[in-house]
Amino acid sequence: MYLSAHGNDVAVMDNFAKRRWEVELNVEPLIPIHTLHDRVQVWKEVTGHAIELFVGDLRDYGAVRNAFESFRPQAVVHYGEQPSAPYSMIDHNRAVFTQVNNLTGTLNVLWVMRECASQSHLVKLGTMGEYGTPNIDIEEGFIEIEYKGRKDVLPYPKQPGSFYHLSKVHDSHNILFACRAWKLRSTDLNQGVVYGIETDETRLDERLTTSFHYDEVFGTALNRFCVQAVIGMPLTVYGRGGQTRGFLNIRDTLRCVELAILNPPQAGEFRVFNQFTETFNVLQLAEMVQQEGSKLGFDVQVQHLPNPRVEAEQHYYNPTHRKLIDLGLTPHLLSDVLLDSMLRAIRDYAPRVKKDIIMPRVRWDGRREEGEDRKLAWAAPRVSGD
Amino acid sequence: MYLSAHGNDVAVMDNFAKRRWEVELNVEPLIPIHTLHDRVQVWKEVTGHAIELFVGDLRDYGAVRNAFESFRPQAVVHYGEQPSAPYSMIDHNRAVFTQVNNLTGTLNVLWVMRECASQSHLVKLGTMGEYGTPNIDIEEGFIEIEYKGRKDVLPYPKQPGSFYHLSKVHDSHNILFACRAWKLRSTDLNQGVVYGIETDETRLDERLTTSFHYDEVFGTALNRFCVQAVIGMPLTVYGRGGQTRGFLNIRDTLRCVELAILNPPQAGEFRVFNQFTETFNVLQLAEMVQQEGSKLGFDVQVQHLPNPRVEAEQHYYNPTHRKLIDLGLTPHLLSDVLLDSMLRAIRDYAPRVKKDIIMPRVRWDGRREEGEDRKLAWAAPRVSGD
Repeated sequence: MYLSAHGNDVAVMDNFAKRRWEVELNVEPLIPIHTLHDRVQVWKEVTGHAIELFVGDLRDYGAVRNAFESFRPQAVVHYGEQPSAPYSMIDHNRAVFTQVNNLTGTLNVLWVMRECASQSHLVKLGTMGEYGTPNIDIEEGFIEIEYKGRKDVLPYPKQPGSFYHLSKVHDSHNILFACRAWKLRSTDLNQGVVYGIETDETRLDERLTTSFHYDEVFGTALNRFCVQAVIGMPLTVYGRGGQTRGFLNIRDTLRCVELAILNPPQAGEFRVFNQFTETFNVLQLAEMVQQEGSKLGFDVQVQHLPNPRVEAEQHYYNPTHRKLIDLGLTPHLLSDVLLDSMLRAIRDYAPRVKKDIIMPRVRWDGRREEGEDRKLAWAAPRVSGD
Repeated sequence: MYLSAHGNDVAVMDNFAKRRWEVELNVEPLIPIHTLHDRVQVWKEVTGHAIELFVGDLRDYGAVRNAFESFRPQAVVHYGEQPSAPYSMIDHNRAVFTQVNNLTGTLNVLWVMRECASQSHLVKLGTMGEYGTPNIDIEEGFIEIEYKGRKDVLPYPKQPGSFYHLSKVHDSHNILFACRAWKLRSTDLNQGVVYGIETDETRLDERLTTSFHYDEVFGTALNRFCVQAVIGMPLTVYGRGGQTRGFLNIRDTLRCVELAILNPPQAGEFRVFNQFTETFNVLQLAEMVQQEGSKLGFDVQVQHLPNPRVEAEQHYYNPTHRKLIDLGLTPHLLSDVLLDSMLRAIRDYAPRVKKDIIMPRVRWDGRREEGEDRKLAWAAPRVSGD
């Protein structure tokens, strides 16, 4: 919608897979989402702009190729992946699915570009989680290493923390190779944690609402904390809460994609932008939500849970994020006003909140609470003799 | 066979996939290979040692789990992947297949280990090709980086040169994560290019012969050069021939696996051994074969072909390979005697050589010679409207 509103001819391709994952886990976005067909229609009514819709699966090479040959894109924004770390850690099925789904889709796009769209620009959604938390500064994709008297600029070493994050690392390696071997051009957006509910486009009509998740699997930390504050559930900080990450407002994510498209790389170039605007640790976020929630009359407690993930809870973290700023990004920083508006928007939908999908059940170490294997819809499938 | 002969109880699992790839490409090993069932039987007759056979596919989680629960291995030697770089570059189908096949199998092994064999040791076949040819020294899996006044030991940056090599990089990242998250233990053997025809075990009975490939897809450089020398075809050096790689004798590969098994890592440890004994560039190998071939009366020419791959033809290359030596590896270095014996063995089977499967047809840049798309069994499948 943002790209369409800003003067581009846009087509979208979707296989509606996320709706099935939501059904599997019995979760749903806070605000009801209309079908994609209906949203395309509403967008046309409200703005006059047409968005072409391809219903298809990126794992289907023929579907990808037909879409490229029909629409002939100058740029391809690739958001079509399983996006949740906890989902990828539920069981072996979801781990394998996440990697096969994400890698196959990206490989098909690369091969189709090679065969019929070699001048197109692939804008790929990556994640800051690819880097992990090394004890040295994080650069944007590549690092100059001086070692035993010699130098080279090499891909930044990656230490991803889930099978989902691993899939993004695999994608990055595949795309880098395709750019080198086939002279394709690509921008990898290593995105931080996104927060926020609305954009200029979703505000045009309530039927244009985008997904806002607060559950343990698809929800992100700040969004989840805001929902917990509104419904009177303690904010669940995993472990000590010293985990520091890059964050950005949902509005900035759209501008970043636009900036990448407006400033394409050279043929053969694979470039990486670290796409976040501020860093916070989890406990800081909880305390900010606690403070703003109190102003609105909510009684907000903070609870430290045993960390379901395997991650450092106190660590050095100093990632660079210059390239998008240099291209003209003006960040919407996290503010009291933004938190206040998020909390008010969530309050309108508070009766829809499903409380039992917020607490973490997916554990990285694979252990389950007594009886959970039988209770959980997503428990590991049984093997005969198991 | 080597592990069985050295006092271990051994089981093997196979899905016979390579035989189908050979049929696809109309290639075959130089010396006829008996069925695995027959070889297990012959091994029992000749040595008295039983090897248990599981027929199954690593992509089948249930099959992997059943094999683990039945055999309960102390160590798992994972050779079960699509092993050819050119195969992975033929077309999008083979690229996707290679990565999905290789990743799924390894992920299934890791999940099964987590669920029912967490003390077992995964010995995984990787490749020196994961590193590419950086302008700094190559370490064994990890490198201490000093950067802007801070230090960390991080995974060595990888620059793989084909979708096959990429699949091995992806595996390495997945296994490292599984060791860290689940306290599994694994050794990644980053193996160089293997040469040689026979081992102590294959010499016991001709029905125990192992695969010796000389074709463009499954053959390796030195083996292919020896076959070309014997049949009077010029040795085909790709490009200038300055491509330097690590090499090792097939006998040493077996000892390396044994050394890894005899010296297992700690729980949670992911270690990497660079498994090669010498480095040569391609032109050096050709000249050595030319020299030894001449002694046997073969007229050996060297021909430089346009390089079908995307790779540096002159580059710095200084990879470490200390860890296996420290554990007791005594290398069988490449010698005149070894080359002489290889050439003589090949001469016995010269009438079986298929000359039309040696020249490179798979090109990394995707271009095809006029008419090849129609001629080649492995040409890219057509999409309607293409």
